[in-house]
Amino acid sequence: MSNWLDAVKWDADGLVPAIAQDYKTGRILMMAWMNREALTLTVQENRAIYYSRSRQQLWRKGESSGHVQQLHEVRLDCDADVITLQVEQIGGIACHTGRESCFYRVYQDGEWVSVDPVLKDPKDIY
Amino acid sequence: MSNWLDAVKWDADGLVPAIAQDYKTGRILMMAWMNREALTLTVQENRAIYYSRSRQQLWRKGESSGHVQQLHEVRLDCDADVITLQVEQIGGIACHTGRESCFYRVYQDGEWVSVDPVLKDPKDIY
Repeated sequence: MSNWLDAVKWDADGLVPAIAQDYKTGRILMMAWMNREALTLTVQENRAIYYSRSRQQLWRKGESSGHVQQLHEVRLDCDADVITLQVEQIGGIACHTGRESCFYRVYQDGEWVSVDPVLKDPKDIY
Repeated sequence: MSNWLDAVKWDADGLVPAIAQDYKTGRILMMAWMNREALTLTVQENRAIYYSRSRQQLWRKGESSGHVQQLHEVRLDCDADVITLQVEQIGGIACHTGRESCFYRVYQDGEWVSVDPVLKDPKDIY
């Protein structure tokens, strides 16, 4: 049962990038990191569980905000060093800024321009 | 003009992950890395140019295969350490295995199962 975990090429820190995508719309919501335990728990609990590099601990996405990511599919890339998650984003907000997606800034003429609305004030989320 | 480059939080190796997504279907095609020069050239030349960590040099995606990724949009995430590219994948093949996407293996009951067809023999691509 652990062969699938050994197949993943963990980086020097024991991590792998995980990209979360809305399973219906295809919108890329965020990218975070997973260690072996996070990926194992993600599959076991059927929800996205990451590893926070800044806090150096497991990050149960949605634990404080309620914005859990329910898992629909996990994929591994050809080099076995990146993972994608198809998720249902509970609450419709993945970003800590209160936006649907963390990718709300678009490159335009030498600037990053915020183009997506804040759906909920972060003060009311956390 | 370089402020937008300074806004990116490059990692210790001077790199940032870049996720390429089909601009029409939303399919995540691949994830690779960019350095400052790669991102600059990507925007200038309107096509995805990565930095190959294994070869330690710029990687003009599609240079040998013809499978260029024409750029439609570049986004930066809230932490400024991940980039997404909306691209048109010329040839319909992003993966060096001859598949549309590098993410062709799905987790199923403790295994990674290849579910996507090889569209073209890699021998005929390179």
